[in-house]
Amino acid sequence: MTLQEIAGVLRGWDRVLVISHASPDGDTLGSAAALLRGLQKLGKTVGFACGDPIPEKFCYLFEGLALESFTPSYVVTVDMADPAMLTTLRETYEGRVDLALDHHLAHKPFAKLAYVDAACAANAEIVFDLLQALAVPFDAPMADCIYTGLSTDTGCFRYRNVTAKTHRIAAATIELGAAAGSINQRMFETKTRAQINAELAAMAAIEYHFDNKCALMCITLPLMEAAGITEQDLDPLVARPRQIEGVLIGLTLKERATGGFKASVRTNEPANAAEICLRLGGGGHKGAAGCSLPGDLALAKEKLLAACEDYLKEQGF
Amino acid sequence: MTLQEIAGVLRGWDRVLVISHASPDGDTLGSAAALLRGLQKLGKTVGFACGDPIPEKFCYLFEGLALESFTPSYVVTVDMADPAMLTTLRETYEGRVDLALDHHLAHKPFAKLAYVDAACAANAEIVFDLLQALAVPFDAPMADCIYTGLSTDTGCFRYRNVTAKTHRIAAATIELGAAAGSINQRMFETKTRAQINAELAAMAAIEYHFDNKCALMCITLPLMEAAGITEQDLDPLVARPRQIEGVLIGLTLKERATGGFKASVRTNEPANAAEICLRLGGGGHKGAAGCSLPGDLALAKEKLLAACEDYLKEQGF
Repeated sequence: MTLQEIAGVLRGWDRVLVISHASPDGDTLGSAAALLRGLQKLGKTVGFACGDPIPEKFCYLFEGLALESFTPSYVVTVDMADPAMLTTLRETYEGRVDLALDHHLAHKPFAKLAYVDAACAANAEIVFDLLQALAVPFDAPMADCIYTGLSTDTGCFRYRNVTAKTHRIAAATIELGAAAGSINQRMFETKTRAQINAELAAMAAIEYHFDNKCALMCITLPLMEAAGITEQDLDPLVARPRQIEGVLIGLTLKERATGGFKASVRTNEPANAAEICLRLGGGGHKGAAGCSLPGDLALAKEKLLAACEDYLKEQGF
Repeated sequence: MTLQEIAGVLRGWDRVLVISHASPDGDTLGSAAALLRGLQKLGKTVGFACGDPIPEKFCYLFEGLALESFTPSYVVTVDMADPAMLTTLRETYEGRVDLALDHHLAHKPFAKLAYVDAACAANAEIVFDLLQALAVPFDAPMADCIYTGLSTDTGCFRYRNVTAKTHRIAAATIELGAAAGSINQRMFETKTRAQINAELAAMAAIEYHFDNKCALMCITLPLMEAAGITEQDLDPLVARPRQIEGVLIGLTLKERATGGFKASVRTNEPANAAEICLRLGGGGHKGAAGCSLPGDLALAKEKLLAACEDYLKEQGF
């Protein structure tokens, strides 16, 4: 289906629940909030759900949005590649998703209708085009939501997934009133002293494996407690191991308060992060992917490094 | 004069020397290399000069460009706000500059003709428009040069100086063949282990002043020697002090091998870096400026902090 056709279908819907993926990031939340704002402008009753709470730094995306609690007539997922990312909502909504808007190459079909464009650096690009197809008049909060999706999913236009289209949409959102400078400052430029201390501690303990092709940073609960920070405070850190010269695979293991670890995998060309994470039940993009690992640090490290070693050997890197 | 008029004048010139400012960055070098490539396509003999050597990481901008040594008939400066930035070339070229293309608000008129547009985030925006006005066909190396200017002068599209136009030109250069992903990786994403060690050492010793409104990082020659790095390796570090929550003025003092210190000032809204540096004989933009300070670390620190204290008091911050 084309986006014009998807727009035609959406026009006939009401009581729409939009769902972001678990461990929500700026793209899934920006996509959801922009779509919700657009649908509301079309007079529709809308609601939002996510398997995890919205991190405080993203709350501005939802400001002034009238969200309702209701039994939805239609369910839309944004930026979700796999129904597993419904997590706690899986029981209620799996098999009940009417439309999936996604930009993951490894999208597993799970919705009745799907629009998947892996050429988009951010899912927010798809939502921007859809809102244009719906002919919804843009306001500054909608522009903020789209810009946030673009900027956060591309390391602020830094990564290889950025296309001319990404920049064109960024230009359009700025003209529509997006507060790009403030958003970037909030997303990328502001760190608390506690975050910096945690960063210094984590960076000082980076480990190198497989002839320095892998760099691994481990962030444990005691480290976070000592620095007085939460898991979300460390989001910007996952980019660091990949930045080290000669590193093909940058790894971060973050201990979860609920047990186990979240692994973030970031790769340089020609390595593929999604291929590594798929082996561990996760997924993502070529340059950035993730998975969950149970057990203690030693076990999580062993599993993650074994997957990397296998991948490096198979690829002959 | 309009850019169309400037283009008309340039068409009549030959034997053109293009000069970048001292301590050259990606914008002055990208602007120069793009302009040189364009003029060469128009059949002109061109040369390049700069008061300082070109850092190795920017050498790709000049690859394949046939630069000649000659007595220039015309001299053009790019991204130069003040003839003092000619440094070692001042004696030869001050009063002999025919055209200045610049985007600094504090541009001091010194050339016979000048085109200054402070609304441009990067000087490369002006050069892009000028090359369009000259109707030079773009190739990938020219697109790389323009993209490098845009990306390096905006913290990769992160800072408040970015406009819709900046993104539109970025989109155009990507379509014209700019290797945006590779350029960004080289400019922002790759650090040697030595750089990381130096960064950790410098960050661990950050000082806070004036009720934490100022954060100061000092990078001395012994620190650089211990880590095995040069001053240029530390370029990305100057963004760090400003990123700390609550900091209005982020300061970096880097000791020069030739004596004295280079001060880099980065400010958050509403503080103005250029106003601080002007007091010390330097200059720049609202968010990013610099100056040179003679003497040892204690003296350089004292002067820099005194200028910040005066500024903070005057502004009532």
